[in-house]
Amino acid sequence: MAELMNRQIVLRRRPSGLVQPDDTELITTPAPEPAEGEALVRTTYIGIDAAARTWLNDQPGYLPPVQLGEVVRAAGIGEVVASRCDAYAVGDVVTTLTGFQEYVISRDDLFTTPVPGPAVDQLAVMSVYGPTGATAYFGVNDIGKPQPGETVVVSAAAGATGSIAGQIAKIAGARVVGIAGGPQKCRAVVEDFGFDACIDYREDNLKAALKQHCPKGVDVYFDNVGGPILDAVLGRLAPKARVVLCGVISSYLTGEHPGPANYVNLLSKTASMQGFNALDEWGRFDEAFGPLRQWAQEGRLVHRQTIFEGIESCVDALNGLFTGANIGKMLVKVSEPSVAG
Amino acid sequence: MAELMNRQIVLRRRPSGLVQPDDTELITTPAPEPAEGEALVRTTYIGIDAAARTWLNDQPGYLPPVQLGEVVRAAGIGEVVASRCDAYAVGDVVTTLTGFQEYVISRDDLFTTPVPGPAVDQLAVMSVYGPTGATAYFGVNDIGKPQPGETVVVSAAAGATGSIAGQIAKIAGARVVGIAGGPQKCRAVVEDFGFDACIDYREDNLKAALKQHCPKGVDVYFDNVGGPILDAVLGRLAPKARVVLCGVISSYLTGEHPGPANYVNLLSKTASMQGFNALDEWGRFDEAFGPLRQWAQEGRLVHRQTIFEGIESCVDALNGLFTGANIGKMLVKVSEPSVAG
Repeated sequence: MAELMNRQIVLRRRPSGLVQPDDTELITTPAPEPAEGEALVRTTYIGIDAAARTWLNDQPGYLPPVQLGEVVRAAGIGEVVASRCDAYAVGDVVTTLTGFQEYVISRDDLFTTPVPGPAVDQLAVMSVYGPTGATAYFGVNDIGKPQPGETVVVSAAAGATGSIAGQIAKIAGARVVGIAGGPQKCRAVVEDFGFDACIDYREDNLKAALKQHCPKGVDVYFDNVGGPILDAVLGRLAPKARVVLCGVISSYLTGEHPGPANYVNLLSKTASMQGFNALDEWGRFDEAFGPLRQWAQEGRLVHRQTIFEGIESCVDALNGLFTGANIGKMLVKVSEPSVAG
Repeated sequence: MAELMNRQIVLRRRPSGLVQPDDTELITTPAPEPAEGEALVRTTYIGIDAAARTWLNDQPGYLPPVQLGEVVRAAGIGEVVASRCDAYAVGDVVTTLTGFQEYVISRDDLFTTPVPGPAVDQLAVMSVYGPTGATAYFGVNDIGKPQPGETVVVSAAAGATGSIAGQIAKIAGARVVGIAGGPQKCRAVVEDFGFDACIDYREDNLKAALKQHCPKGVDVYFDNVGGPILDAVLGRLAPKARVVLCGVISSYLTGEHPGPANYVNLLSKTASMQGFNALDEWGRFDEAFGPLRQWAQEGRLVHRQTIFEGIESCVDALNGLFTGANIGKMLVKVSEPSVAG
C-alpha cells in the first residue's frame, strides 16, 4: 500500500494584514503514524474562523501563537482512520484542531470531541451543534440572557456565530436586529435567518438606523466585530444592557483596537460588557448541543455555509473572512465525508 | 420670631470645565414652610461628589440636569426642624438631596433616609454608612467580588469612595493597590487607609508600576476615573477579571471620554466591565450599613474628610474635587450638628 501523504499549510512568515502568498507554504509530508494513545484523523472540513488569523500574530492569547514552520491552527472535523486511543474507533467522526492539513493526530484531550453517530451531518456539526453553535448558545444564554420582548442586536449577523446567535435570541422571544455588510448579507439575515431587521453598516447611517430599529434602546448586544460598530451600539444601550464580546474582527488584521468612547454608557446605563470564550465552557458543550440539535432538526435554527474546495484554498478562505466573502459558516472541504448525515 | 432665611446657590449658566463665579449665584430666600407630608431639614453637611458636577451639564443621566435658576443638586445630611410628615420627627437626622442650601424640604421618598439615633456621627454617616459607603460596598461585593489572595486595584484611592472600597476589599482578604495623585495622597492611602501599596499616577510610569505591584495581573479593578488610567489597568487584567465602573471623573469636566483601547482584553481574558450606580440598590442600603457601621466601630474601616466651611464655599469645594483638593470625603459644613456622634 502506498504511503499515506499529508498536505499541510505551514507558516513561513508572520502576515501583516491579509495573508500573502509567501506567508505560508503548502508542503507534502508522510501522514504520521499514531503512537499509543493517539488516533489519526482524516480531515473532511476545516472551519475558517477569525481566531485562526489571530494565532498567526506573535501575541499571547488563550492559545499560543503558531510558530514559524508549524501547521496553521484551525478547528475542523474529520474521521478516524487509525486508532491506538481508547476514546476513538476507526470511523468515528470527531471535531478537533485539524489545522490546515489533510491528516491530523488526535488524543483524548480537551480539543477533540467525538460526534455521536451513526449518521453525522458534518455541516450541521460545524455550523450549529459544534463549537460555533456552542459559542453562540453560551454567549447568548449565559451572558446576554435576552428576555421576551427585549431588543437584541447582533453584529456580523450573516456570519457563522452571529447568524446562530440571533436565531437563539429569537427563540428566546427577543426582537433581533442584525448588522451586516451589503444588501446580499442583509437579505440573508432577514430572509434566511429570520431576524426582524438588518442594518447595512456600509450603506446606512449606523447611528440613525440603530435609533430607528431600536427605539427603546439595545438590551443585548452580541458583538463579533468591535471598533466603530461596537461604539455605535454602546451609544444606544438600554438600561441594564448586556454586551457580549465574542470577537473583534475589525481589528484582527491590524492589531489595532480603537477604544469605544461610548463605554461610559456602561456607567450611565448600569450596563455590562463581558468578554467570552467558548473554550471556557468546553465541559458544558453537551448542555448546548441538545437544544441546538433539536432546534436544527425542527427547522427553527437555519444554518448556511460558504464552502471552499481543497486544502490549497485555505488561505483564500481565511482572507475571505475579512473581505466579507462568507454567508454562514466558512468552511474548506478537504475530503469527502464517508457517511452523509 | 424672625423669619427663617435660606441661603442657596442657584445655577445661572451652565459651566464649561470648572465652575466659574458667574455660573452660580448665592441668593437668600425665606426658608419654605413644610406642606402636609413634608418636613423642613436644616442642612448640616453637604456632600461634594463628582455627580453634582455632571448634573450641571445639559445631558440626560439617571437624574435630570439641574435647570437654570434651580438650586445646585447635592446629597447631604441635616436635621429635621419642622415636620408635617409621619416619617420624620423634629430632631431626626436624615440624609437627603439637600442641594447647595441651608434648608431643604424633604418628603418620605427614595432620596431621604432617616439615620437611627440617638447619637449620630454625621461625618461617619457621610463617609461610611451612608450612600458613599453603600456605593463602595455594593460595587466591591456585588460586582468586584474579591476573593482572598486576589489583587484589587482602586483608582482615586484617596477619595471618598475609593478609600472605603479598598478597605472593604482588604477586609475580604484581597491585596489592594491604590492609584492616587501625589505623594501626600499616596501616603494617606497606605498609612491611613491601610492599602498594601499606592501608585502615584503623576510621578510613576503607570504601566510599569502596575506590572510591579500586580505581578499576577489585576483580578478586580474599582474604577472611579476612566480615561487613560482605566486603559492602563485594562492592559493588566488577570483572567476572569471584574472591572467595576463607578465613576469617570477624568472626563466629567470636559464631557470627553477617550475610549479605552485595551477593552479588547475583556475578550482575551474573558473579563467583565460593569457599570454601577448605588441608586439602583437604594432599597438594600441597610444590608450594607450593618457591616459598614460595625467595621467602622471596630476601627477596621477608617474614614477621613476634607471639610470646607460655610454655604459660600460649596463651589470651591466642588471645583476642588477635580483639582485634587480632598483626601477622604469632601464636605461643606453648613451648620453645627446639634448632637455629636
